[in-house]
Amino acid sequence: MSKIIFLNGCGSSGKTSIAKAIGHESPELWLSFGVDTFIDMIPFGRQEPYLKFIPGQNERGPTMHVESGPEGVKLFSVMPQFAEMLTTCGNNLIIDEVLFDEDTLKAYAKHLKDHTVYYIGVFCDLAVMQEREVLRRDRCIGLSNDQIDRVHQGTLDSYDFKVNTTVISPFEAARRILKFMDDTPAPEAFRVLEKQE
Amino acid sequence: MSKIIFLNGCGSSGKTSIAKAIGHESPELWLSFGVDTFIDMIPFGRQEPYLKFIPGQNERGPTMHVESGPEGVKLFSVMPQFAEMLTTCGNNLIIDEVLFDEDTLKAYAKHLKDHTVYYIGVFCDLAVMQEREVLRRDRCIGLSNDQIDRVHQGTLDSYDFKVNTTVISPFEAARRILKFMDDTPAPEAFRVLEKQE
Amino acid sequence: MSKIIFLNGCGSSGKTSIAKAIGHESPELWLSFGVDTFIDMIPFGRQEPYLKFIPGQNERGPTMHVESGPEGVKLFSVMPQFAEMLTTCGNNLIIDEVLFDEDTLKAYAKHLKDHTVYYIGVFCDLAVMQEREVLRRDRCIGLSNDQIDRVHQGTLDSYDFKVNTTVISPFEAARRILKFMDDTPAPEAFRVLEKQE
Amino acid sequence: MSKIIFLNGCGSSGKTSIAKAIGHESPELWLSFGVDTFIDMIPFGRQEPYLKFIPGQNERGPTMHVESGPEGVKLFSVMPQFAEMLTTCGNNLIIDEVLFDEDTLKAYAKHLKDHTVYYIGVFCDLAVMQEREVLRRDRCIGLSNDQIDRVHQGTLDSYDFKVNTTVISPFEAARRILKFMDDTPAPEAFRVLEKQE
Repeated sequence: MSKIIFLNGCGSSGKTSIAKAIGHESPELWLSFGVDTFIDMIPFGRQEPYLKFIPGQNERGPTMHVESGPEGVKLFSVMPQFAEMLTTCGNNLIIDEVLFDEDTLKAYAKHLKDHTVYYIGVFCDLAVMQEREVLRRDRCIGLSNDQIDRVHQGTLDSYDFKVNTTVISPFEAARRILKFMDDTPAPEAFRVLEKQE
Repeated sequence: MSKIIFLNGCGSSGKTSIAKAIGHESPELWLSFGVDTFIDMIPFGRQEPYLKFIPGQNERGPTMHVESGPEGVKLFSVMPQFAEMLTTCGNNLIIDEVLFDEDTLKAYAKHLKDHTVYYIGVFCDLAVMQEREVLRRDRCIGLSNDQIDRVHQGTLDSYDFKVNTTVISPFEAARRILKFMDDTPAPEAFRVLEKQE
Repeated sequence: MSKIIFLNGCGSSGKTSIAKAIGHESPELWLSFGVDTFIDMIPFGRQEPYLKFIPGQNERGPTMHVESGPEGVKLFSVMPQFAEMLTTCGNNLIIDEVLFDEDTLKAYAKHLKDHTVYYIGVFCDLAVMQEREVLRRDRCIGLSNDQIDRVHQGTLDSYDFKVNTTVISPFEAARRILKFMDDTPAPEAFRVLEKQE
Repeated sequence: MSKIIFLNGCGSSGKTSIAKAIGHESPELWLSFGVDTFIDMIPFGRQEPYLKFIPGQNERGPTMHVESGPEGVKLFSVMPQFAEMLTTCGNNLIIDEVLFDEDTLKAYAKHLKDHTVYYIGVFCDLAVMQEREVLRRDRCIGLSNDQIDRVHQGTLDSYDFKVNTTVISPFEAARRILKFMDDTPAPEAFRVLEKQE
């Protein structure tokens, strides 16, 4: 049985840095993959059938909506199965995801039902994520503003544990997550999700 | 049935650029993944159990031998199965690999037996690969010198088609590969490998 | 007369992000350069005569001491003159420096005496800088631990204003610096330094 | 007296790789800087007053015209003076430029008149540069198509030596340049330009 740390949150909420910090702080080994692993497989210069970037605006600033095209849906639907494959052969795993619907979450719950999954919500104030987007690169501007209302809604919010990176560093978030895991040998969130199916 | 372009060759032989050029030149869509996709999943700062880098020297210059540790063997052994998963749900695929043994090649042949695989050898003069390593980054120095004697040996050399990037550009290599594919609806290499099993 | 924001602090204290944030927040235009601008000019693969990296250890963790070789001293000594050249033809400037001695600071004061210089100390707790180094890349590990005792010592500490990035974001630091500048048309630090000469 | 290798050619003609290769192959030390050194100083997210990117199309494909705004003219006009500053204090220099007018070339000739300048034209077939742009990143697409007619016109073409990177590698180009320099202690191009003033 493998262990999975499942991080869900907006782009720029700090998931990738937390994953790196867990890699550094934990005595155990953790492979990590996420949406970016699969985006990197998209053919060079042919993003359109996979992902469409739709800029907009709301009262909190610019938005950037990312919509999966038909090829994207096909590509990303492999992710829960890929997670199962890696865990089944004995790897612990950190998954770095931006979930918007219950079905995807339940697909993960089904594929990872033989393993121990810690479902972690990564939160951050929008203003801070917007600043991080500016410091990164232009095409990210507006992603977090578009995602923040949807990424933690409804069942998606049934986390075992939450961290908020507005004021704590990625390492502090990593240490709190690892502490929670030490204290919690049997996390409940994915157990409950699995039964709902 | 999906199509796979399987590129085998040394680091710095030009596989990644050829994959990008195919993405740009082909009318079809091609997902691509390779060894680097899996190396990127290794935990930050914990490379040792996965990959060991052993520097050396031979009469042709410095060498860098990469040895998979036990965790690396486990991780990379998932690659043929991952290729099957992506092709089975209807994606064409470019695989960017550095093979050293017949068993891995046969594992791919087995997992991809329902699909059309073009097995392409990517060659390049060592001196040119050594220059490319210098232009990239220091830790690559010696990789191609270590790999060149092993990557095309024995059964590994049973390619459907070969390109040599010593003097032709990645785009010219891509065009020659795509032309070969147009002319060859039923490539033989993987068919033969599969029967050998 | 041009304006200069002179940021002095350890590597990983957040100077580059603050410079970007000032670029984004200020109504004025600010060119920025720093030690990295000059390190990038060093010939590829020939760092030794310019910079030597000497790893060590103290009670707070690993250290990395960077020592300028004779070519490095020659190269970096041009920086105050370069700042003068850019300001004299009418550019506002953000300088991103890691100063260790009074002489270099006074060279800047002399070369920038016709302009308005805001001398800003960028501070951060060592533990946080050490974490940031881990999240960046391996060769940085220990830089801040080596620099923290020297970068703000003696006359170097005669700042007009200080920010501490341990808990505030680069944008918050930028806003505080810009507010201080609005409130302080005639900063004193470089005036005093200039007279000492 | 310092030595300068002055490389003029389109974006994607291979100048930066040649500069790296010279750094690796030459027994001497060569600092290098170019247009990119100065572009990197432009304030984050405020490119407009410095550089405007104007996309277009001609019979050879897409074009991208880069126009300096008033702030850009001011910034880039410092480059010949910066070259003089670095050479005067005893550094050999590789300059990586994209010149479009005689006046800038003559400004370099004037500022470097006390030093030995090798004026090298870096050529490449447009189709190959267009392919290199595709392999790099999207915003470069069309740069070489826009520049190729202007970068070697009139007096700008008065090179001491030319290399064509269409078929030779950056290292081979570097070796040919270094061989030419060994054979030519007194290059003429900049001497002639200087007298024209």
